[in-house]
Amino acid sequence: MSYFRPNIDRLAGYTPGEQPQDTGWIKLNTNENPYPPSPRVIEAITQAAQGRLNLYPDPLATAFRRAAADVFAVEPDWILPGNGSDENLTILARAFADTTDQMVYPYPSYILYETLADIQGAQHARLPLNADWSWDWSTAEPVLAKAKLALVPNPNSPSGNRWTDAEILRAVPAQGMLVLDEAYGDFADQPHRAELLRSPKGHQIVITRTFSKSYSLAGIRFGFAMAHPDVIAGMRKVKDSYNCDALSLAAATAAIQDQAWMRQNVLRIRSSRQRLAETLETLGFRVTPSQANFVWCQHSHHASKDLYIQLKARKILVRFMVYPNVSWAANGTLEGLRITVGNDGEIEQLLTCLREIV
Amino acid sequence: MSYFRPNIDRLAGYTPGEQPQDTGWIKLNTNENPYPPSPRVIEAITQAAQGRLNLYPDPLATAFRRAAADVFAVEPDWILPGNGSDENLTILARAFADTTDQMVYPYPSYILYETLADIQGAQHARLPLNADWSWDWSTAEPVLAKAKLALVPNPNSPSGNRWTDAEILRAVPAQGMLVLDEAYGDFADQPHRAELLRSPKGHQIVITRTFSKSYSLAGIRFGFAMAHPDVIAGMRKVKDSYNCDALSLAAATAAIQDQAWMRQNVLRIRSSRQRLAETLETLGFRVTPSQANFVWCQHSHHASKDLYIQLKARKILVRFMVYPNVSWAANGTLEGLRITVGNDGEIEQLLTCLREIV
Repeated sequence: MSYFRPNIDRLAGYTPGEQPQDTGWIKLNTNENPYPPSPRVIEAITQAAQGRLNLYPDPLATAFRRAAADVFAVEPDWILPGNGSDENLTILARAFADTTDQMVYPYPSYILYETLADIQGAQHARLPLNADWSWDWSTAEPVLAKAKLALVPNPNSPSGNRWTDAEILRAVPAQGMLVLDEAYGDFADQPHRAELLRSPKGHQIVITRTFSKSYSLAGIRFGFAMAHPDVIAGMRKVKDSYNCDALSLAAATAAIQDQAWMRQNVLRIRSSRQRLAETLETLGFRVTPSQANFVWCQHSHHASKDLYIQLKARKILVRFMVYPNVSWAANGTLEGLRITVGNDGEIEQLLTCLREIV
Repeated sequence: MSYFRPNIDRLAGYTPGEQPQDTGWIKLNTNENPYPPSPRVIEAITQAAQGRLNLYPDPLATAFRRAAADVFAVEPDWILPGNGSDENLTILARAFADTTDQMVYPYPSYILYETLADIQGAQHARLPLNADWSWDWSTAEPVLAKAKLALVPNPNSPSGNRWTDAEILRAVPAQGMLVLDEAYGDFADQPHRAELLRSPKGHQIVITRTFSKSYSLAGIRFGFAMAHPDVIAGMRKVKDSYNCDALSLAAATAAIQDQAWMRQNVLRIRSSRQRLAETLETLGFRVTPSQANFVWCQHSHHASKDLYIQLKARKILVRFMVYPNVSWAANGTLEGLRITVGNDGEIEQLLTCLREIV
């Protein structure tokens, strides 16, 4: 006898990328940053650990919000820190999506959005993307007209492409909110700050940001949402009072104050990304031009799943992804490899293995 | 124009206890532990900070679950760590309470439960307690017969009393789940491990535990739920994949492995609690016998609010609490002071001030 809600009983649960706890792996499967965080972050954590951990942290995260507001040229009340972007996405579903409301997202894209809708018990629908990852507006617009919450990652995953501001603004639901998930925003040619929030549709937009990618801090679970103060105030009602701990707050505050460190690592990753993409192409891969810290590719002769398995046997993890119900894909199923841009040594070992395999 | 769900728009939001960010306060308002965490915790954090923070943490929290399972004499799959007990309580509401389901809780008690029900958009009802903090079963049982999720803190807050196992088992909903919130469980005369989960109603019980109180770690936000594996597996579907960060996991694992440190602090707090309660009584307070790290009291001549204000003017924070709709209280409103058991110096300063005031 289960007392769970029926939607929870039905749920398989989101499967995150493999996280082997033993060493010796080259991990190119969950888009982590290969470089360490700023030394100031380690200092800040060490100092906070000596501090008053017996006391609750600042529930308003005042110091972090001020630092983030400086970087993004907004006021602190435009910022809501969370326990990873995951928490802010969860808060958004809980804040905006009733059981009769529709949550929508591009497809193929980040599959977590669908899991969040299922957990919330809300309705959901996919907005099919074209083979070149552009929007199929004739299909999307009637859905967006009735949607309450649209979730759009930009750059997109798994493809790594980035849509224009005009396309993003077109994806704002007529009577609802757009969540612009900028997890990979810092790796783009021209990273955004809060420009879209200043647009005429700005009151219907929430931007989410994470420290897991560009700031090399997947381990501390920290992200923040950025939106007009009335939207942030409503989201704050849904969050747990003390959702961010004292150590993560200290780490994230130090990290965002060291923009130079983050930007230097982003530059290295963008440079490695170009070399990785070019070499994959010489090996017979089709590679989608990427604005993120990963590339999406398929080989002309080898099945993606086989390549994934053969790489795993060599202790190299990449992400093998399968998207059913894609009209333009072979047999209606899109398959491919999403490969995180590691450091140069990791990329070199990956390419060496791939040269042996293909 | 708001696009928030109507229940979120209506919500005032839970107000946590005051958390002044400047120094110089004697903080006896949010039941923090006055003693520092185990030195092993600081070591573990410092070491984890030097580690691979660029990588995601273990989503299954394997090391922590093993350590907790050892202490509570269960298997690791009976344990679900969370970002504070707050997160596990939120997960429980989301896992079990549909919009037509009833969430119930004793009253006066921890008011967060009501906020959680409002956020979830579930129905809710109070189970009125008697003036001596015993259960009014004739009122409670018909409500429990129809409840989906009962939330019961034991020891209770603000009163600090602790109910017997027989009473707790009687509060299990006929067709639903009981959440036994043992945030203050370690301060009781005979702390529980997982005994109630082995009872005939054990499959309908989830125990929640926190590191914020007995382990002196309110700053790291860590707690865990303990239940039969099928219940834990369902709850896990609702949580964010990486809900606990690498630093908190390292800290909590070290903390739970140093039981001697925790127990020593608990003994000191229990000893101070006795002295505090006895002295308050000599000053004219009525004090409820406490099994927690706080005492609930009212003065025979002075209004609780006045005492709170006068103490605050002396930079001593205690919690002034008001519960409307309490049939047995004067004018139907229960008021009182909930005073955290600080260290001996803090207690002495509090008592010195109170001697001046009353």
